[in-house]
Amino acid sequence: MLLAFSLAQEASTTAPPNPAVGCVIVAPDGRMIGSGHTQRTGGPHAEVMALRDAAARGASTAGATAFVTLEPCAHHGRTGPCCDALVEAGIRRVVASIADPNPKVAGQGFERLRAAGVEVEVGPLAMEARELNLGFFSRMVRQIPWVRLKAAASIDGKTALENGTSQWITGERARADGHAWRARAGAILTGVGTVIEDDPRLDVRLVETVRQPSLVIVDSRLQTPPDARLFEIGRPVWIYAAARDEAKALALEARGATISCLANADGKVDLAALLADLARREVNELHVEAGHKLNGSLMREGLVDEILLYLAPKFIGDGLGIASRPHAGGPLTALDEALALEFRSFEAIGPDLRIVARVAGRDKF
Amino acid sequence: MLLAFSLAQEASTTAPPNPAVGCVIVAPDGRMIGSGHTQRTGGPHAEVMALRDAAARGASTAGATAFVTLEPCAHHGRTGPCCDALVEAGIRRVVASIADPNPKVAGQGFERLRAAGVEVEVGPLAMEARELNLGFFSRMVRQIPWVRLKAAASIDGKTALENGTSQWITGERARADGHAWRARAGAILTGVGTVIEDDPRLDVRLVETVRQPSLVIVDSRLQTPPDARLFEIGRPVWIYAAARDEAKALALEARGATISCLANADGKVDLAALLADLARREVNELHVEAGHKLNGSLMREGLVDEILLYLAPKFIGDGLGIASRPHAGGPLTALDEALALEFRSFEAIGPDLRIVARVAGRDKF
Repeated sequence: MLLAFSLAQEASTTAPPNPAVGCVIVAPDGRMIGSGHTQRTGGPHAEVMALRDAAARGASTAGATAFVTLEPCAHHGRTGPCCDALVEAGIRRVVASIADPNPKVAGQGFERLRAAGVEVEVGPLAMEARELNLGFFSRMVRQIPWVRLKAAASIDGKTALENGTSQWITGERARADGHAWRARAGAILTGVGTVIEDDPRLDVRLVETVRQPSLVIVDSRLQTPPDARLFEIGRPVWIYAAARDEAKALALEARGATISCLANADGKVDLAALLADLARREVNELHVEAGHKLNGSLMREGLVDEILLYLAPKFIGDGLGIASRPHAGGPLTALDEALALEFRSFEAIGPDLRIVARVAGRDKF
Repeated sequence: MLLAFSLAQEASTTAPPNPAVGCVIVAPDGRMIGSGHTQRTGGPHAEVMALRDAAARGASTAGATAFVTLEPCAHHGRTGPCCDALVEAGIRRVVASIADPNPKVAGQGFERLRAAGVEVEVGPLAMEARELNLGFFSRMVRQIPWVRLKAAASIDGKTALENGTSQWITGERARADGHAWRARAGAILTGVGTVIEDDPRLDVRLVETVRQPSLVIVDSRLQTPPDARLFEIGRPVWIYAAARDEAKALALEARGATISCLANADGKVDLAALLADLARREVNELHVEAGHKLNGSLMREGLVDEILLYLAPKFIGDGLGIASRPHAGGPLTALDEALALEFRSFEAIGPDLRIVARVAGRDKF
């Protein structure tokens, strides 16, 4: 199962919007005869890849055990049901890490296998398998993506100077590491302020990738410049506005953007509705790289799940923070009102420090 | 030498203002026959302790090798010269990590040993030995203490709410760890603002100690309340003012405080002169626990060597920062003007994160 899990990890950037799954097939005599992981969208799932691998090796799968990090699918999606493929291949026993949260599967895979006489065991590495696909689980269970807010700051929590300068606070290795996190996201979200000020590409280029995440721009008044560099990248660009200005919208649509209007009562973009819309667009993990205002809005509305924070060994002092006005009730008056987080990891990335902190309890769904 | 070094580490809280030194004596046949480390002020140095240990074991030190983490002293200070003790004990060879930076020793120890026919080798674990006694080296070489600024902040760099609430941002284990750092300091420095707002004791109580560091208060106008809790602890209290108000001074002196006037041109306490004065008072490491204003002043004047930062898994948002106006020229206009640090270590302390960051190049003296 550990091998199946490490295969699943390899698929974490290519699999989305599918979950990253690994599968290992072991013959009755204990030999590993096949392995595989989820391919790109529309390609075969892990189980089929592993069966094909066994066939390519000339090994018989009759009576074999399949170790798989997620419940095999029972439905016809972009590919045929994996359950049927396993049964047809004569698999006698399936050991799965965890049930698929997809309501189209939801235990039906296990039922279907058991109905066909396959022994089913569920549980090994369940937490790890869920964690690896937390975005997929979030989309299936909560109908919103897992929202990871990325920031690069000095140790005093400043993301930019007072004059807005923010390039670069962290070093090259931290920036490349940030691209690795972008690569596993279904979409990258930013605000129009960042687009206008920095004209960023917001793509994956410092690490290899076979897939560019979609780009989401929160742009209430459609101020995104049609000549922004972000349009140079081959990937969907989704702009969310509060109202449609026809001339501006047409100019942006001419650049390939998809424009949606989702206004809240304040005439701003309804961020909660935006997340639900992104889930409908099959975004599992949403990678936020925005300025302190949009970061603050996301926090204030309780929409942030995790913070990916790169701390540079610098002291800036006066400057812009990570998120402005992050609490709905205004400045805190008691410390226990602070947004509670849990550190997940610390790691030195070149001269910088990477911290992953999760909003306490947000992964309990 | 590794054993001698680990003995030296054990003395790090008891030895100040002496350097923490370890000594191991090895007989000509390779057996370890004695070991010791620096005792409390006025007590024997490591070499004498190790010789006594050998004597207590009934072992002959004739022809033996002494491994010691610092050059043996050649002067009569609070104790007799260790060089003479080693020579009298018949030690044939001394392996020392590093020369003593004390101008009263400064190679004289090695000379004196060589003159007596003792073979001397210098170098093993030199960096580690210097690092362990960086405060002592600083006082001897720079004539100022090594200044370590401690802060506890949320991950967005806030040390208090806007209303001043700061107790407690970090958890119990981080606070106990902070006391362990206090324990190795010669003095703890704070500002009168913190004294008035929090009425802290600023002593070592969450870890065991045989020695309470002195307390230093930066208090330009002698506003320290004579009934402050900090006077309840048995240790020197040194108050630095810009001018002497006789009535207030007498009330504080009646509580045991020593008052010094060190004004700069702005009518504030001259912080650089204060550090020099603390070095004269034999403070090796100065542990700063102050508010954002005094922290900012120390940074602005380039007096901070190291930052000991506890980050709590919280997001505060609006609040007070670690240091206000830390740069002499006002808010930065370019990122390369930021105070450059180097991370020394990261460690999880309970639910919190401890970061030690050193001002780049400050340890090159």
